[in-house]
Amino acid sequence: MSNPVFAGWWSLNGNGEMTGTTWVEESGFLEGPVMITNTHSVGVVRDAVIQWRVAHGQPDPTGYWWSLPVVAETWDGWLNDINGFHVKPDDAFHAIDSAKSGPVDEGNVGGGTGMICNEFKGGIGTASRKIDSKAGAFTVGVLVQCNYGSRPNLRIAGVPVGKEIPEDRAYTSTSFRDADRGSIIVVVATDAPLLAHQLKRLARRVSLGLGRDGSISGNGSGDIFIAFSTANSGVAGADHVVDLKMLPNDLIEPVFAATVQATEEAVINAMVAAETMTGSENHKVIALPRDRLRAVLKKYNRLNQ
Amino acid sequence: MSNPVFAGWWSLNGNGEMTGTTWVEESGFLEGPVMITNTHSVGVVRDAVIQWRVAHGQPDPTGYWWSLPVVAETWDGWLNDINGFHVKPDDAFHAIDSAKSGPVDEGNVGGGTGMICNEFKGGIGTASRKIDSKAGAFTVGVLVQCNYGSRPNLRIAGVPVGKEIPEDRAYTSTSFRDADRGSIIVVVATDAPLLAHQLKRLARRVSLGLGRDGSISGNGSGDIFIAFSTANSGVAGADHVVDLKMLPNDLIEPVFAATVQATEEAVINAMVAAETMTGSENHKVIALPRDRLRAVLKKYNRLNQ
Amino acid sequence: MSNPVFAGWWSLNGNGEMTGTTWVEESGFLEGPVMITNTHSVGVVRDAVIQWRVAHGQPDPTGYWWSLPVVAETWDGWLNDINGFHVKPDDAFHAIDSAKSGPVDEGNVGGGTGMICNEFKGGIGTASRKIDSKAGAFTVGVLVQCNYGSRPNLRIAGVPVGKEIPEDRAYTSTSFRDADRGSIIVVVATDAPLLAHQLKRLARRVSLGLGRDGSISGNGSGDIFIAFSTANSGVAGADHVVDLKMLPNDLIEPVFAATVQATEEAVINAMVAAETMTGSENHKVIALPRDRLRAVLKKYNRLNQ
Amino acid sequence: MSNPVFAGWWSLNGNGEMTGTTWVEESGFLEGPVMITNTHSVGVVRDAVIQWRVAHGQPDPTGYWWSLPVVAETWDGWLNDINGFHVKPDDAFHAIDSAKSGPVDEGNVGGGTGMICNEFKGGIGTASRKIDSKAGAFTVGVLVQCNYGSRPNLRIAGVPVGKEIPEDRAYTSTSFRDADRGSIIVVVATDAPLLAHQLKRLARRVSLGLGRDGSISGNGSGDIFIAFSTANSGVAGADHVVDLKMLPNDLIEPVFAATVQATEEAVINAMVAAETMTGSENHKVIALPRDRLRAVLKKYNRLNQ
Repeated sequence: MSNPVFAGWWSLNGNGEMTGTTWVEESGFLEGPVMITNTHSVGVVRDAVIQWRVAHGQPDPTGYWWSLPVVAETWDGWLNDINGFHVKPDDAFHAIDSAKSGPVDEGNVGGGTGMICNEFKGGIGTASRKIDSKAGAFTVGVLVQCNYGSRPNLRIAGVPVGKEIPEDRAYTSTSFRDADRGSIIVVVATDAPLLAHQLKRLARRVSLGLGRDGSISGNGSGDIFIAFSTANSGVAGADHVVDLKMLPNDLIEPVFAATVQATEEAVINAMVAAETMTGSENHKVIALPRDRLRAVLKKYNRLNQ
Repeated sequence: MSNPVFAGWWSLNGNGEMTGTTWVEESGFLEGPVMITNTHSVGVVRDAVIQWRVAHGQPDPTGYWWSLPVVAETWDGWLNDINGFHVKPDDAFHAIDSAKSGPVDEGNVGGGTGMICNEFKGGIGTASRKIDSKAGAFTVGVLVQCNYGSRPNLRIAGVPVGKEIPEDRAYTSTSFRDADRGSIIVVVATDAPLLAHQLKRLARRVSLGLGRDGSISGNGSGDIFIAFSTANSGVAGADHVVDLKMLPNDLIEPVFAATVQATEEAVINAMVAAETMTGSENHKVIALPRDRLRAVLKKYNRLNQ
Repeated sequence: MSNPVFAGWWSLNGNGEMTGTTWVEESGFLEGPVMITNTHSVGVVRDAVIQWRVAHGQPDPTGYWWSLPVVAETWDGWLNDINGFHVKPDDAFHAIDSAKSGPVDEGNVGGGTGMICNEFKGGIGTASRKIDSKAGAFTVGVLVQCNYGSRPNLRIAGVPVGKEIPEDRAYTSTSFRDADRGSIIVVVATDAPLLAHQLKRLARRVSLGLGRDGSISGNGSGDIFIAFSTANSGVAGADHVVDLKMLPNDLIEPVFAATVQATEEAVINAMVAAETMTGSENHKVIALPRDRLRAVLKKYNRLNQ
Repeated sequence: MSNPVFAGWWSLNGNGEMTGTTWVEESGFLEGPVMITNTHSVGVVRDAVIQWRVAHGQPDPTGYWWSLPVVAETWDGWLNDINGFHVKPDDAFHAIDSAKSGPVDEGNVGGGTGMICNEFKGGIGTASRKIDSKAGAFTVGVLVQCNYGSRPNLRIAGVPVGKEIPEDRAYTSTSFRDADRGSIIVVVATDAPLLAHQLKRLARRVSLGLGRDGSISGNGSGDIFIAFSTANSGVAGADHVVDLKMLPNDLIEPVFAATVQATEEAVINAMVAAETMTGSENHKVIALPRDRLRAVLKKYNRLNQ
């Protein structure tokens, strides 16, 4: 957490929380981890990040501690006893301590455990794209905690999957079904050397990927996105003018395309990876039935075999 | 132009111009017509709106004139001799004087004449939705001046039409083809009683409709949207506290859905209505071939007959 | 907490936290209390507000709980053992349970206890203005948790008080003194019937009041403001189109003036009310010496007696 | 106009126009001159900038022309026959062709000719500050086209000059006097290597300088600011990853202070430089009487001699 990176954020529909964003917007930097939990545990996780930093970090140059952690949430109250406040500081410590490189588990894991997406079981999903442009080779990775959407709106690869598989909708309550109750948090990471204002542009592109999946970003949805770049490491805290790299705007388009595509895919990956779950109050949410999905895609000529 | 209406605007990618938006954002009102022209004629049209108002309107209560017209643009320099500056004040006067209710011409008309959309001929497109909600019956209408997009990204009804019809791309210049050079201006009108901040929410939904059509909102694209409500007529200029109507946020979702759907459709309508055009420097842009489109939609099982 | 009110927020310099603002911006409403604490206790207070609501409120119509509390902070780590995490849920419950109408305690109280303002002891300050306009009689009240500023910049009634009273600066550490380390949270409340976008305009005016007091809004300062109106009570949750009142923009200027003036004064009131304090690590921060202040104001002909 | 520079803009009160800002915000760059004229001539000046570029510039790499000029305005309709539309393309060409380094004329010049500031004669004003920080030596320059304010609010050096010199107010019309009718455009230029998002921070600081001068930013005021940096020249148009310099946020505070101070001073300089003018309809606006000003400053002990 000692090496801020350039970042930008954006809210498509702000019925949700991502703490720390006011400083991301002002400073242009993301200073620590992006934590994602459920709606009623944002506070405990936020303060725990500070506690962890106090325990593990070096004091900053002024000899005191300061922290404005980024913690986002989606609501899991249909499957989880959210008002039991079961997330504890130790869960946050564990998440930070066990963070590592490499493939990311998808589906019913972490903050994604109780998620519902287009009224199928949702969760964590990821996707990435490699870009080989004249300006260099870059990677864009997208991670979603996916909890949004009404069944009828769902499109996969342009196919109206939600209308084709109308049964077993997650919400048995009409008042839930009427509204797009969920949310989606999206984190976009890239090694392309983008500045803060360019990363905000990336964050806005997430909405185009969600559009492809059929989202209307309902009133109840907290659709909040953050993008950061791992390039330009180490520049934030210098006590002198620093050197940076920047990918000019005229060369940014492949990164836009990658962001849109990876977002479109990460949502689907979350649903495909998630497993049927029965949660609190015996609420049951089915996984997207993969054989049905295959049949529907075939019907619309989007699967060859 | 004497009766401001609540309005909100939003920019998905601001490589374009819509004058007057700073006051729309600040005041929450749209005070006159929304004019749409080409990139290099924004100025002449803007000042002409003021001239028209000076000539036709009543003085405002303070006895002087004031105007911050809303004028937007998309770039038509491939088909039009844009640097000939052929748009004159009279064209703007004519547009205002001939404005009327009823169906709107689509395709190669008005500001849409020289437009190119997904490398087919573009132009003006419209679509609307009627909502019959428990809060009342409302209408949402969308008008686009459609000039954005690269061919390979085009989706219609979720079908990869752009990839299926790769030939006769508009731009013969590689540097053009590499980039999403165009733009799209979208105007959303509704009679639902929405306030300024709610109309901004509507404007943001336009991006979801464009996402469905495959847009990545390229760096060169001026994707700027404005939404207004015809409800609450006459409230802006009162010299006392006024009465308003508001559709609460909890009931807004059908208006969101209508906006996304009508945007998705208006873009396609612009392309379907437009006719092949040969313009300046003998540049030729073909219309979306309707029989090919039908065949492609059929291939992907999206047309029954 | 069951009756949302129109609200708008704005950040002059976002080196701070105010949770819940993404939903304030999106919805146009403030749904619960505005809590103000220290930087490292935002999380515990935030979750405690939800706990309180779960324990005391009625379920919302969909039968589940949802909450995005507004909790702001300023940093009290010079006088308080901030990393001791001494604020507990009970403190938040107590604050909510004991909230009442009437005069507000100022100075070293509540979240204001450990505050430092222009390197004098800071804290909570309030001021208000009554407006008797042709549109009606309205009140504007401002509350600040005041913790910002370097001594040399302080102006009171336009007088360079900070330069005239240079001694006993709060920070003995040079690295602290170099920077404007503090923050200021400002809450503006009015009964003028303003909509969300108008209240955002009010929030922006806070910066003009701070300008009068000499603020430069340093890089380290979290200068975050929220404004709400108690008019239009009960409209947010209706399941039908609702009636509202609005003060037109053309009549808003007295409310702007009142906001600027009350902000300018509330900061000074916080300093005048606060008492000298010795806190953690034996750090001592002196109160603004009132006799010295009187003498300085007299020197600049701003006090008659 | 061939060398974009990093820039950011901000609107304190958007009852005004600054074209081109949507692209400044999106791209992070200012691509051409900042033109300032009167409200009803923004269009003609905007298109003239494009015409000038077409006539003088080199084609851009794609072989076509594109331009989104930045043109701002304040309203001079009290002294000028604004609806005579007397500004012509040649005036804009002349302004660009005669632009040069060195001291800037102040007072009744250029766009400042018909300006009224705090109901004294206003116009163009400038001020600058040199910073000698540990990160290097930088300069901040501020130029204002100053046309805002009601007499009673004016403060100079913290002294209530407007209340001390109440006579000969500019507006004889009550409806004008009731409202803060004017506007102020502020341009901040620096050689400190700031990125786009940092320059937006600078633009926000302008409001603190105006606060010091007593502004309440009335409803009718177009208070719009743009800041740019001359550092990092030549980076925008490269076709590869480019090297940049950045002043880290932790070292930015002196630049903030300089911006606030130079803004505060530039407004006063505009008024002090301007001369009494009698304009259209025999409207007369007096210059700030310098001997009276001296006497008032002395009364409040702000002048030594």
